[in-house]
Amino acid sequence: MSLSLTILGCHSATPRVNAFPTSQYLEINNSHFLIDCGEGTQRQMRKYKVGFSSINHIFISHLHGDHFYGLVGLLSTYGILSREKELHIYGPKGIKEVTLLQLKISQSHAQYPIIFHELKSKESELIFENDKVSVRTIPLNHRVYTNGYLFTEKEEPRKLHLQNISNYKEIDKADYLNIKAGKDVILSTGEIIPNAELTLPPKKPLSFAFCSDTKYKPDIIPIIKNVDLLYHEATFLSDREDLARKTKHATSKQAAKIAKDAEVGQLIIGHYSGRYKDISLFQKEAKEIFENTELAEPGKVFEI
Amino acid sequence: MSLSLTILGCHSATPRVNAFPTSQYLEINNSHFLIDCGEGTQRQMRKYKVGFSSINHIFISHLHGDHFYGLVGLLSTYGILSREKELHIYGPKGIKEVTLLQLKISQSHAQYPIIFHELKSKESELIFENDKVSVRTIPLNHRVYTNGYLFTEKEEPRKLHLQNISNYKEIDKADYLNIKAGKDVILSTGEIIPNAELTLPPKKPLSFAFCSDTKYKPDIIPIIKNVDLLYHEATFLSDREDLARKTKHATSKQAAKIAKDAEVGQLIIGHYSGRYKDISLFQKEAKEIFENTELAEPGKVFEI
Repeated sequence: MSLSLTILGCHSATPRVNAFPTSQYLEINNSHFLIDCGEGTQRQMRKYKVGFSSINHIFISHLHGDHFYGLVGLLSTYGILSREKELHIYGPKGIKEVTLLQLKISQSHAQYPIIFHELKSKESELIFENDKVSVRTIPLNHRVYTNGYLFTEKEEPRKLHLQNISNYKEIDKADYLNIKAGKDVILSTGEIIPNAELTLPPKKPLSFAFCSDTKYKPDIIPIIKNVDLLYHEATFLSDREDLARKTKHATSKQAAKIAKDAEVGQLIIGHYSGRYKDISLFQKEAKEIFENTELAEPGKVFEI
Repeated sequence: MSLSLTILGCHSATPRVNAFPTSQYLEINNSHFLIDCGEGTQRQMRKYKVGFSSINHIFISHLHGDHFYGLVGLLSTYGILSREKELHIYGPKGIKEVTLLQLKISQSHAQYPIIFHELKSKESELIFENDKVSVRTIPLNHRVYTNGYLFTEKEEPRKLHLQNISNYKEIDKADYLNIKAGKDVILSTGEIIPNAELTLPPKKPLSFAFCSDTKYKPDIIPIIKNVDLLYHEATFLSDREDLARKTKHATSKQAAKIAKDAEVGQLIIGHYSGRYKDISLFQKEAKEIFENTELAEPGKVFEI
C-alpha cells in the first residue's frame, strides 16, 4: 500500500520556458500510470527519471492539445525503444483515429499492440482493474467531453491475528484459509469465536483523484469522497471567476471548496493560467478554505 | 542583406533531457521562416526569444515525428494568441490531413487561415518568393519523401555611384531611374558613359541550404553550390557508416564532403544519434575534410 505522484507538467496551454502542459505519473500499489500527456511529456519523463517501460496504461482526460499533443511522440519513442508489451490508452472517442493517423503518416514503427479504450459515458464507470488497483472515471464539465480519473487501491484481506489465534489450541493451520476469508470459528464446545478477534484489519486502501479540466462541479463529491489525494485544476484566482465560468475552468477557491466538501486528505492544485506571474497566490487563496493545499510544480513528488 | 540562423533543436528522435528534435529559425533579408518543427519547438522558441508573430511560413522537410510533431501545438498556440494573419505551411503530401484532423479533434480555434502547400515533386522547384527572398526545394534521399530547402536573397539593383555621377553636370535626377535600371547614358556630345561607371554593384545575395534528413547524396551539389551557410545532417560518425547507409542518414564526414564539393562558406552539422555522448567528435571528423564546420546546439545563432 503506497502511492507516489510525480508532476511532469502542470500549466495551462500557452507555452513558456518553464511551463509544461498537464501530465502526471502515478505509482499506486506497484501499478504505474500516466495521466494526460501534453507536448513535451516524454522529455519531462526523462528529466524526472520516469521509467518508460513501467507504463502500460495511459489515461487522457480530454482532447484539448495541452492534455494530449505529447502522446504520439511518446508512442513513437516506444517504437524506437522496441517496445513489445501491450499499451492501453483510455480517452474520449476520437483519440484512436487521430493517434493512428499520426503514427501512420509518420511511418512510426509501433510493432507493439496499442489498445484504445474510447470513453463516451456521462456516468462514472469502472474502466480498469487488476488485483491491486481499480480506476473509475469522474465525469467533469469542460468545453469538451472530459473525464477525471479515480485510482483506488483494492482492499487487502484481513490478516491473521496469530497471537489471538494461539489462545485457541483447537484452531490449526487448516482453518487459516477460512479465517482469512472472513469466517468465524466454531469450537468443539459450540463457542463461536468471531472473525474480528482472530484477524487484524488491513491497511486502509489509498486513493487518488485527478480532476482536470473542469468548472466547479460539486456533484463529483460523492465519487471522490475521502480520497487521500486530490488533484483539482485551478486555472484562475477568484478575481477572474467570471472567466472561469465562461471557459469552464475552476478557481483556486472552488478547487479548495471541492476538497473541503469531499473531506480529502490533501489537495494539489495546478493548470495555472499564464496571466499570473506569482503562483503562490493560488495556494494562499485555496488555504483560506482548505488548509492542506499544495501547488503542483514540475518535478514535485507527493508520497503517501 | 543579412542572415541569422537560430538552432532551436538539433538532435535525432530519442528523447533526452537536453536533446530537442530538429527545428531552426531563419531570418534572411528581413523575412522570417521556421524550418521543421519537432516536439517542443514552441517551448524552444520562447526560450530563445523567437517572436511567434514574425513567422508566416513554415517549411517541414519530411513527416517523421521528430521533424513535425511540434507543429500542431504551435498552430494551436497561434489560435490562443488570436492570430489573424495567414500562415503558410510547406511539406510533403499528407501534412494537411493529419494537421487538420488534430486541430479539429482538439477543437483548437484556428480562426486564422492556414494554407498548405503540399509537395510531391522529385525535382528541385521554386516554392516561394517575395521581393526579397526565394525558396527552392532540395530533393533528398531518406526513408520517406523528404526535401531540404534553399533560401536565397534576391539580388538588389545596382546603386547610384553619386560621386562619379557628379563628374557629369549634364546628368540630372531625372536620369537616375534609367541608370538604376542598368542603362548607359548618352551625353549631348554623343559620348556614351557606361552604366558600370555610374553605379556600384549591390552586395552579394546571401543563401542558406537546409539538408535533413538524407543519405549522402552528391547530386544536390549543383543546387547548393557556393551557399554561404549549409546545414547538413550528420547522424552518425564514420564508425557507423553501415548504419547510416541502412537508415538513409549521413555521417559527419559525408556532410563535410558535400560542403567541400559544393564549396560552401560554412557547414553546420546536427541530428546527432543519441548513441554518441561526446558530440565534439562529429566536428573533429568533419574538420578533417572541411575546416569551417560548426556544431548545431540548441540556442546557437549563426550570423552573416
